[in-house]
Amino acid sequence: MLRPLFPGCASSLRAAASRTSRPILSSSWQTIAAARQYSIKPATAPSTADIDPTKLTIEKTTSPKSLKKPEDLIFGRNFTDHMLTIEWDATTGWKTPEIKPYQNLSLDPATCVFHYAFECFEGMKAYRDKSSNIRLFRPDRNMSRFNKSAARIALPTFSPAALTELIATFTKLESRFIPDARGYSLYLRPTLIGTQRTLGVGPPGSALLYVIASPVGPYYPTGFKAVSLEATDYAVRAWPGGVGDKKLGANYAPCIVPQREAMSRGFQQNLWLFGEEEYVTEVGTMNFFVAIKNKETGQKELITAPLDGTILEGVTRDSVLALARERLEPEGWKISERKYTMKELDEAAEEGRFIEAFGAGTAAVVSPVRAVSWKGKLVNCGLKDNEESGEITLKMKSWMEARQYGDEEHEWSYVC
Amino acid sequence: MLRPLFPGCASSLRAAASRTSRPILSSSWQTIAAARQYSIKPATAPSTADIDPTKLTIEKTTSPKSLKKPEDLIFGRNFTDHMLTIEWDATTGWKTPEIKPYQNLSLDPATCVFHYAFECFEGMKAYRDKSSNIRLFRPDRNMSRFNKSAARIALPTFSPAALTELIATFTKLESRFIPDARGYSLYLRPTLIGTQRTLGVGPPGSALLYVIASPVGPYYPTGFKAVSLEATDYAVRAWPGGVGDKKLGANYAPCIVPQREAMSRGFQQNLWLFGEEEYVTEVGTMNFFVAIKNKETGQKELITAPLDGTILEGVTRDSVLALARERLEPEGWKISERKYTMKELDEAAEEGRFIEAFGAGTAAVVSPVRAVSWKGKLVNCGLKDNEESGEITLKMKSWMEARQYGDEEHEWSYVC
Repeated sequence: MLRPLFPGCASSLRAAASRTSRPILSSSWQTIAAARQYSIKPATAPSTADIDPTKLTIEKTTSPKSLKKPEDLIFGRNFTDHMLTIEWDATTGWKTPEIKPYQNLSLDPATCVFHYAFECFEGMKAYRDKSSNIRLFRPDRNMSRFNKSAARIALPTFSPAALTELIATFTKLESRFIPDARGYSLYLRPTLIGTQRTLGVGPPGSALLYVIASPVGPYYPTGFKAVSLEATDYAVRAWPGGVGDKKLGANYAPCIVPQREAMSRGFQQNLWLFGEEEYVTEVGTMNFFVAIKNKETGQKELITAPLDGTILEGVTRDSVLALARERLEPEGWKISERKYTMKELDEAAEEGRFIEAFGAGTAAVVSPVRAVSWKGKLVNCGLKDNEESGEITLKMKSWMEARQYGDEEHEWSYVC
Repeated sequence: MLRPLFPGCASSLRAAASRTSRPILSSSWQTIAAARQYSIKPATAPSTADIDPTKLTIEKTTSPKSLKKPEDLIFGRNFTDHMLTIEWDATTGWKTPEIKPYQNLSLDPATCVFHYAFECFEGMKAYRDKSSNIRLFRPDRNMSRFNKSAARIALPTFSPAALTELIATFTKLESRFIPDARGYSLYLRPTLIGTQRTLGVGPPGSALLYVIASPVGPYYPTGFKAVSLEATDYAVRAWPGGVGDKKLGANYAPCIVPQREAMSRGFQQNLWLFGEEEYVTEVGTMNFFVAIKNKETGQKELITAPLDGTILEGVTRDSVLALARERLEPEGWKISERKYTMKELDEAAEEGRFIEAFGAGTAAVVSPVRAVSWKGKLVNCGLKDNEESGEITLKMKSWMEARQYGDEEHEWSYVC
């Protein structure tokens, strides 16, 4: 539709590439990606009201749920007693934050979230430490990414500290749902949806931010179980100039059919390739790490794809990189955020230089990978037949958990 | 998340590109696009129940809305008295179709449509003819595309004839909302959303199909008004192997910020370019047509981008092409579905060979374009300063309307 829908809106997008002459030095996808990358900065402080935690109202449920047995918890299936909600509209800004009984949303069928995917979310966890304090893990990272996702689809941004404070209050209120055992946590799902009731395609004039919480058990209750992946080139998850680096609903539904395809051939997930060069980008809904030995020098290298606009900026990804730089680099490892290809991995496997591979994300923390199906062959990622995880994967899990559960006091851990 | 979520699902996706060796003959984007294109066929007849129009139940509203003045109608803002709904679940299939009073949807905040954009839709119109019959325009095309969109994101498919019949019944029930004047119609919005209440990323086990209807007036109430576009290369709407050819919610929210950017510089919409070659793909949320004279032969050519997986399969696009082949080709025009570049358009403009340009979509039918901002210059699309539309655009509007309103009896028109 060509009719002007929102004349005079201020610009919130910074195009890194000028719209005038744009030199392309080579036709490689890497160059194109670099030339076309652009970034969005959250809009500057809005003149309308920001989120205000001091205004929080709490209405407690009159029918508290009974707790499930820890071993019966299924990811994202059961929720706590309450939810945190904050409405927004373009005229007044953010309204009163409310904690109220978990309940259905009542929305007009013309609401824009149903039609144009005005929706973004975060995934984060709260942990119970040995003193029974509740701890969030790097919430600043989630809030920063949440704002970037929101800005990219014309949804409102907010003060990261204010929302963190509200989430901490909400989490403490729901802390009885977090089993007191290692591996258990409360999965938090901050969600932001456009709620304008019109089919015109434009920036939503109203929105709803809500947070729900689901108690979860360890991803691998009986220890790691390595998965196998199908390298996927016929479908493309993300591209330069697209939105694959944002945590938008839009990035998820399109991945399900390829995932079902991979599973029909016996592989648990897709390994998303990009471009003619078959760059390795992500695995399923996690970032991907590989450890290989350098062909010439024998140096061990831990590699993950760079944040070039096609990779989700994983909080676990960033944490793994930081821990690796802190603890593996001094042992002689090279830690790399760089492009790498399936061909490079295949060669490493053929030459016995593939040490191990794992996915990294909030749900599983780290998830070991046994093999990748690529061009009709199975590329072995370094595990022996009787192994379910490599050494670095195990170490990362332990290092991450120490900070998540507060065994190691660290600035990444936010005590509620 | 790597855990197997739906083992044993049957394959519904046909990868055109084999996952084994895939030769790339050149690095051009055209070749890459061709090599990477893939298509989805709706799943074969499900063993669960299909949509059954004979089971329709109708609950009429007890508080009918008063009609708005025709001139006060705004696209997608006001809706009729009722809605058509059909629930689905994976075990039983499609349930009883219901026409009931227009009402809010009540959904758990964990419902997958809010998180992973399990949503697709159609846009179609119903017209009142001179005998006061109500007519749909090419509903078979909308139903076919709706099924393709649904299949691509693991939502259920259905019998096109069954849903068309239900939509016709619903439309007749709401016909008092269609003003009896040329240019007015009832905009119909079939929508399909995933309703599973879990945060696990997998194919929805339940869904809701609903149809709402909004009476609309002529897009250009006082005659055509040509718009100007900003050629956009810093953001990319669609990619080979992506979902840009499907009518998914996921394709819309990401386009709003670039649209706002274009408007902040005085342009009503984006003209989406693709690749290093700067292929012209679509304008805003419409397909794009250009008419130019051949440099060597002087032959007039009407061009639109081909359905290569990055272009929405517009019903209006297809109708414009058919009408052009039927009525312009005999007059010596060449009608082309082919790739074309901004450079080609710029040269045509510089050399006085650019005849006219227009967008094509359900909302505006055709929408004339005055100029395109590209690399800091304004490419004039052939209109004189005092003109708001070219001749072909005017003819297309008139030809289309004759079939939409049933002045010309034609198989495209479906009498309810």
